[in-house]
Amino acid sequence: MRKLEVCFSPDIYQAYENTKATVVVIDIFRATSAIVTAFKYGVSAIIPVEHIEQALDYKKQGFLVAAERKGEIVEGFSYGNSPYHYMGEEINNATIVLTTTNGTRALEKARRSKEVLCSSFLNISATAQYLLHHAEDVLLLCSGWKGKFNMEDSIFAGALSDVLMQSGEFDDISDSSIASAEFYKANAHDIPGVLSRSSHRKRLEHLNLEKDIEWCLQRDITDVIPVLVGEKLVEHRRRLG
Amino acid sequence: MRKLEVCFSPDIYQAYENTKATVVVIDIFRATSAIVTAFKYGVSAIIPVEHIEQALDYKKQGFLVAAERKGEIVEGFSYGNSPYHYMGEEINNATIVLTTTNGTRALEKARRSKEVLCSSFLNISATAQYLLHHAEDVLLLCSGWKGKFNMEDSIFAGALSDVLMQSGEFDDISDSSIASAEFYKANAHDIPGVLSRSSHRKRLEHLNLEKDIEWCLQRDITDVIPVLVGEKLVEHRRRLG
Repeated sequence: MRKLEVCFSPDIYQAYENTKATVVVIDIFRATSAIVTAFKYGVSAIIPVEHIEQALDYKKQGFLVAAERKGEIVEGFSYGNSPYHYMGEEINNATIVLTTTNGTRALEKARRSKEVLCSSFLNISATAQYLLHHAEDVLLLCSGWKGKFNMEDSIFAGALSDVLMQSGEFDDISDSSIASAEFYKANAHDIPGVLSRSSHRKRLEHLNLEKDIEWCLQRDITDVIPVLVGEKLVEHRRRLG
Repeated sequence: MRKLEVCFSPDIYQAYENTKATVVVIDIFRATSAIVTAFKYGVSAIIPVEHIEQALDYKKQGFLVAAERKGEIVEGFSYGNSPYHYMGEEINNATIVLTTTNGTRALEKARRSKEVLCSSFLNISATAQYLLHHAEDVLLLCSGWKGKFNMEDSIFAGALSDVLMQSGEFDDISDSSIASAEFYKANAHDIPGVLSRSSHRKRLEHLNLEKDIEWCLQRDITDVIPVLVGEKLVEHRRRLG
């Protein structure tokens, strides 16, 4: 029996918690998209922290520190969760500390599971291949928005579930996997279109995130998979190598 | 601004709680389908309780008491949550006490909101009409399964959301409403088909619930709407009349 489940909010994680599972943390707009981008551009490690205070402590120690709340960079910090903050030379081989509204909370919840990965459209195929060949049970954890279901994370969970279900490798498949895959398939021809109706878009439209959103919806620009090892996210290949 | 939201699990209700909302409690297999059936067959009131102990107290006082856990009638009780338990003459004008695995938990969570209704496919059109003309904000609360998202409640929430969104009366629509409506529309031609893949079906297939499931998926066999008044669910028309 190999289990595939999707959890739509960190606030119901306890109902899905499974110590045998590889947990895939998803925060499409924009934490896990930014994290994947950072590794593509050569970051050495990312330390996710839940609270601003922890981020400030790291800053005092001289770390590069990124902090986002409600879509904006927190005052006193230089980086937020725009993928465009993670493309410069200064991040090459750097260790970055990161706290975001939803994504780092999801990472914190998943910490006790067998393995924790970060995924996004930017590395969806690499993630799917890894899960098929190197994981047992799979739990896709959507970061949501302040405890609520959100569209961008769940449509991505549906896209990934769809690939995993098609493999025939999973025989215990949750209702949430099937429903999110159906939602994805009904809208696969126009993901930006359906997402334009989402609360995220309305919530953040004053921030002019069009460029970020376009970036986050690209598929397979990299095959790196950030994986949590101890306190740090590191690049999967590096850990194996 | 009129808000429409769907909450997929009672365990994330706190993120959606809205004292201005009419909350529609949904437990398709089978609590709210059984409750609607009971009112169609003339029950006078239903007292939902969360715990078996409370149900036993009522039983000692001589009430008709129904108790279900994991799909089966709890030992020592005569009724469970099959709609077929609520069609006999003995329930006509009776007050019934009811506790179920998920549905009564959802009712308990919703209790503090402006108004609480029970809905199912059996009274979907009456519910939609009521919400359009007599409610302000609407929150559809799926009972789920032990804290998890489930397919039958969410596809129903999608069917109801679809009607409400088409009215143009709502201008603040949650991601969960849009996603569940998309899930419903993609499968409206064969709801029994998609539900045959659900965990509920696998979980309860040894109980031979085919007849119950067929009953619960009928549309609009009644226009009664059970509404919570104090501790009791009563028939909506009766309350107004």
